[in-house]
Amino acid sequence: MKVSIELKKVVDNSYDITIDTLPELTYETKVAVVTNTKVAGLHAEYLLRRLHAKELYIITLQDGEEYKNQESLETILETLFNHKFNRSSLLIAFGGGVIGDMTGFAASIYQRGIDFVQIPTTLLSQVDASVGGKTGINNKYGKNLIGAFYQPKAVYIDAHFLKTLPKREFAAGVAEIVKMAVTFNAEFFEFLETADLSDEENLKRAIRSSVETKARVVSMDEKEKGVRAALNYGHTFGHVIEMQTGYKKFLHGESVAIGMVMANRLAVRLGLLTQEQEQRIKAVLERYDLPTTYAIPDAEEFYEAFFLDKKSTDTKIKFILPRGIGNVEIVDDVSKEDVLAVLREFEAK
Amino acid sequence: MKVSIELKKVVDNSYDITIDTLPELTYETKVAVVTNTKVAGLHAEYLLRRLHAKELYIITLQDGEEYKNQESLETILETLFNHKFNRSSLLIAFGGGVIGDMTGFAASIYQRGIDFVQIPTTLLSQVDASVGGKTGINNKYGKNLIGAFYQPKAVYIDAHFLKTLPKREFAAGVAEIVKMAVTFNAEFFEFLETADLSDEENLKRAIRSSVETKARVVSMDEKEKGVRAALNYGHTFGHVIEMQTGYKKFLHGESVAIGMVMANRLAVRLGLLTQEQEQRIKAVLERYDLPTTYAIPDAEEFYEAFFLDKKSTDTKIKFILPRGIGNVEIVDDVSKEDVLAVLREFEAK
Repeated sequence: MKVSIELKKVVDNSYDITIDTLPELTYETKVAVVTNTKVAGLHAEYLLRRLHAKELYIITLQDGEEYKNQESLETILETLFNHKFNRSSLLIAFGGGVIGDMTGFAASIYQRGIDFVQIPTTLLSQVDASVGGKTGINNKYGKNLIGAFYQPKAVYIDAHFLKTLPKREFAAGVAEIVKMAVTFNAEFFEFLETADLSDEENLKRAIRSSVETKARVVSMDEKEKGVRAALNYGHTFGHVIEMQTGYKKFLHGESVAIGMVMANRLAVRLGLLTQEQEQRIKAVLERYDLPTTYAIPDAEEFYEAFFLDKKSTDTKIKFILPRGIGNVEIVDDVSKEDVLAVLREFEAK
Repeated sequence: MKVSIELKKVVDNSYDITIDTLPELTYETKVAVVTNTKVAGLHAEYLLRRLHAKELYIITLQDGEEYKNQESLETILETLFNHKFNRSSLLIAFGGGVIGDMTGFAASIYQRGIDFVQIPTTLLSQVDASVGGKTGINNKYGKNLIGAFYQPKAVYIDAHFLKTLPKREFAAGVAEIVKMAVTFNAEFFEFLETADLSDEENLKRAIRSSVETKARVVSMDEKEKGVRAALNYGHTFGHVIEMQTGYKKFLHGESVAIGMVMANRLAVRLGLLTQEQEQRIKAVLERYDLPTTYAIPDAEEFYEAFFLDKKSTDTKIKFILPRGIGNVEIVDDVSKEDVLAVLREFEAK
């Protein structure tokens, strides 16, 4: 005999992303702000002036992608246990993508899930990572290999935090902005070809367009079973680059920039992108001094590393390739020869 | 300005629970069976005769609640990484509640979520733990404090496995059956007062009624925001008993049995349950030699331990109390005096 569990229902995980000066935030519960030493030093006071909670805790982690690991996760969880956080308590992620991803994951597994809010402080996390509910940590096998889809209750994006952002980190954020434009919005790409993003109005427009694109894509496909995978443009190659360089040589956005250049080469080879379009994308990345090449130690080895990537199925690798500018294709039948040919162009001599 | 992420949609996590001889199971993907040494020794061959997969791995953990921890979780995850499991791979939980909870949690966080199937082998996991998607691990702060709500794709309940179950573990399963009856089904309770569960037909009826009750409650309230909390009857007290005895002295179902007796005392004190009803419930537990008392070392300390329980909000403890037999109330305004008075009745002299 069969007994059915009926779990078909309407679930509403909708939330608002506020792009504005951080408003007053008042919570009648225990709140823990998770941040890193650098962000705390620069911006804790700005946040605390606007944040009111019944009990407030601040968890300060080391800064850097290499701390996006099990140990940091346990540091967060230990604090919550020590202070008897419960299901009505709240976490606030206050920092870049690393802090956001770890805080979201901690919120998702603490007592089977408590609420969290994102206050991203880097351009990259404002335009991409803080929106959409992907959370996780890295391990020795790769990036974000342990994690959950878990949506925040709200996201607050305040350009104030970008004033102190180093030029290199700003550029890394631009890489994800370029990604959104190339894959989904040709007009936005044209804007990026000429606009000066050091101008605050231009920057806000770029943030808004990126967030709107991301929001639209995530609304269509929260769990990345289809179109959302297109936002991994540049990431399939980029993740391997990050893994091979120990997450140290390149910022995430930088390896994505190189990854987009590699994906574009493949797209040109397969007739999806013209050489002129390829050059235009590269030119935008170069405007922000983003790296556009990486000396692959061994093309075969690089190829093998794709297969642990979450986006690959048992035997196929999914490549996200631009079809012209403003359109994108998810292709899972590229021949090994074509991929290796592209990888060999980047191979260290 | 605000950008909204629209994530309101129909989600269908429904699945079937098959109560029958295990059918042939064929999967075209990588499959890892997670089990423990005891279950593997007794039943691996029975399972493997019916299970076919593209690639099959067997992960064998130590048997016991004390192994429901981060280390075992990492053992599972390491195997998946080593064998390059990806998002289309499958986990099968083959064992009792400990194996089911850990396997489900591993499935929920591996690459942000892969499918899993439950094949419970103990009475307790067949009637309760395998159904409903609660997953997690224990840590030094308590039980299931790290975890997720994550539904299996299917549950297969085969009474064959119960033939080898030690009497004490069988009784621990009966405790959860009694819980379902007392809280939701008076007629089922009357059946349990007289039926001999060593008779296979009676046992199957009890399993079916329990699973149907659980399925109904979970369908109404998957994330335990309301009525599902009623299934924690006996658990609020029981969890503290388990914690205080290091998860070693009592099986989970045994501490739930004691917990129900304690909850009943409180219910009698508050006028929700008559002494006659209290005696009837105790008599059913005693029919299966379940323990019904525990010498509390210190009533105040026991009381304090409630506050880390997931079911408590910042300042209130939620008690699940039977209102007669077949009905249940979730009460969060019991005075400390009333609770302490009950705890003192159980205090070690």
